[in-house]
Amino acid sequence: MSPHTPPLSRRLDGLQSSAIRDLLKLTARPDIIGLAGGLPDEQLMPRDRIAAAAESALADRSRLQYTESAGWGPLREVLAARESARLGRAVPIEEIFVTHGSQQALSLLAEVLLDPGALVVVEDPAYVGALQVFRAAGARVVAVPLDGEGMRIDALTELLARGERPALVHTVSNFHNPRGVTMSPSRRRELANLAQRYGFWVIEDDPYGELWFDRPSPEPVATYSPNVIRLSSASKILAPTLRTGWMIAPNVVCRAVELLKQGADLCGSALTQQIATELLADDQWLTGHVDKVRRSYGERAEALVGALRARLGDRVVSTEATGGMFVWVDFTDGTDTVELLPRAVEHGVAFVPGSAFAVSAAYRNSMRLCFTTSDAPTLHEAVDRLVRAV
Amino acid sequence: MSPHTPPLSRRLDGLQSSAIRDLLKLTARPDIIGLAGGLPDEQLMPRDRIAAAAESALADRSRLQYTESAGWGPLREVLAARESARLGRAVPIEEIFVTHGSQQALSLLAEVLLDPGALVVVEDPAYVGALQVFRAAGARVVAVPLDGEGMRIDALTELLARGERPALVHTVSNFHNPRGVTMSPSRRRELANLAQRYGFWVIEDDPYGELWFDRPSPEPVATYSPNVIRLSSASKILAPTLRTGWMIAPNVVCRAVELLKQGADLCGSALTQQIATELLADDQWLTGHVDKVRRSYGERAEALVGALRARLGDRVVSTEATGGMFVWVDFTDGTDTVELLPRAVEHGVAFVPGSAFAVSAAYRNSMRLCFTTSDAPTLHEAVDRLVRAV
Repeated sequence: MSPHTPPLSRRLDGLQSSAIRDLLKLTARPDIIGLAGGLPDEQLMPRDRIAAAAESALADRSRLQYTESAGWGPLREVLAARESARLGRAVPIEEIFVTHGSQQALSLLAEVLLDPGALVVVEDPAYVGALQVFRAAGARVVAVPLDGEGMRIDALTELLARGERPALVHTVSNFHNPRGVTMSPSRRRELANLAQRYGFWVIEDDPYGELWFDRPSPEPVATYSPNVIRLSSASKILAPTLRTGWMIAPNVVCRAVELLKQGADLCGSALTQQIATELLADDQWLTGHVDKVRRSYGERAEALVGALRARLGDRVVSTEATGGMFVWVDFTDGTDTVELLPRAVEHGVAFVPGSAFAVSAAYRNSMRLCFTTSDAPTLHEAVDRLVRAV
Repeated sequence: MSPHTPPLSRRLDGLQSSAIRDLLKLTARPDIIGLAGGLPDEQLMPRDRIAAAAESALADRSRLQYTESAGWGPLREVLAARESARLGRAVPIEEIFVTHGSQQALSLLAEVLLDPGALVVVEDPAYVGALQVFRAAGARVVAVPLDGEGMRIDALTELLARGERPALVHTVSNFHNPRGVTMSPSRRRELANLAQRYGFWVIEDDPYGELWFDRPSPEPVATYSPNVIRLSSASKILAPTLRTGWMIAPNVVCRAVELLKQGADLCGSALTQQIATELLADDQWLTGHVDKVRRSYGERAEALVGALRARLGDRVVSTEATGGMFVWVDFTDGTDTVELLPRAVEHGVAFVPGSAFAVSAAYRNSMRLCFTTSDAPTLHEAVDRLVRAV
């Protein structure tokens, strides 16, 4: 580099690559069974439907052009219909905003909702992609623990009673990443009530809600208050390549996000948005497709949790896998998962140590396992390798 | 809205929708000849090649998955080869970063390169999408005028002599939007020398460089200094729907952008990136395709400028249209283009008043005309309508 190379912004100080990402690079060897990733299974993605939809989209030359910043009109209409059914009210198209994956919704919302120094409450352990965005926005991040019923609303209430005034509370309401749990209906109502009473926003980040195994997810938190902004995505039910996420938010929020989206990247892809539209609009096909994904993931989750219990018994406590993509495992015998990881990799299996998701607590005895991309025999083998490493 | 609706961020104060966008909505009526837009002609986009590339991309299921934040490897390799030829040095893949259109490169770079309050020098009139991003980053924006040879380097030198120390200078080096001019080779060298001497970054924003009519664009500003970050895009030569832009920047800048891209939207679309790769890698086909676009745009530009001169004579001075998508017209008779616009729309023709691009100067007697999406007879009719409105 030339001695005259100009400096970079001080905003970057302390910004680091996600530990998970760096880890994934290390564990991408083909001889390692990867339970570390967080990818949906590409074998279950509707490749032929996507190819057919691409062909029909490209029959119309206007699909080659720029599209609206808020998303292609027909996609917003399909999403409004789906979300109206989900939320039990008529959601107008003005309250639907399409983003480049729901990660973009998070990053634009952080700018729209947060002043520097604002307080953001997240769950502990947290979705790392949200944490990164809130910290980059200069927010003060405080964590509230999770238990089997999701976010501990009693801990949030206590925080509010101490005089803390969050601008925003972030929750992964269904099949939490990384913790695997789902917020109970009564806590959803309580969270919404607190949002109304104290005047804060809630981001209900819900990419996994449709991936339930035994019974449908509870009604969204957004059912209970207009202060709740709901995010979801086509990545987990169709395919990440479509880069199609969306938010349901009050018109005033969507219009502010629209201004920022123009500066961020102008607009999304008319091609991938039309593909998403065609697949999301075909109710009958979509139901069958998502059922198939659910069944596969459900079988894999059962295989993984079953093997963990059979082979490790009382030495571990694992979440019931009721949906989503992840199982959270706590060692009860003091096993340190950060120390365990290199031994596990030697034995040919990878996971993410709990500390990668930690905000306040340490989670040194915990790990996240992803069951989506391995079949049952492979998951059994993975647990065998893990047992040898322990 | 509920009385409890929480507030939005103060960051949004003063942020407004682009005047051009609001205007475009008004002038989308089918009876109006639109010279206001800035869209490439979808009739010239390689629809069949894109459809074939989509089909072949989807033959590989891994194209349905998430891809690398920095862009799909093979795309970065193709871009590295093309840019190596353009820049006359071997550009390593680490210096290529793929973005969601080059607008995303601008917005991520604003975060990577600018501290709040940093000085940014732009051209006057300016590319509005850049202006918006720099202002949103909290930069102090100062403008340097353009003339027939591009950015007035004497004015920049004067600014530096006064003690101003920009962190960044932004230029649309080829076929400027909105001003139509191209920076001369000697000014490119001078700008690069100043960047080295004073230690500032240059963003060479070059979406139009391949759309030359008579002779190729001069060597990029980036040829002359490693302080110059070059941006380009597939939107104007292939299709905006691919949302594929890229930057060529020092490794340290690319790695910082990568961290921010993870938070912004994780990654681009593996599908549209593979389509772009296939088309950009097919040199022989691409040369023929871009030649065809050049010829059409060149004919249209000539028709527009010819009609303006024939019908308005000394009342206007228009740029020589040597490439790109825009012609800039100054009225010499005091015609106020903001006042003219509603009369023009009544007569069935739309343009963008110069004031929409103004930073320091007013440009009340100027307008930008886009010639890409109308054929010669339509452009003649457009000028007839304009003359009636004047």
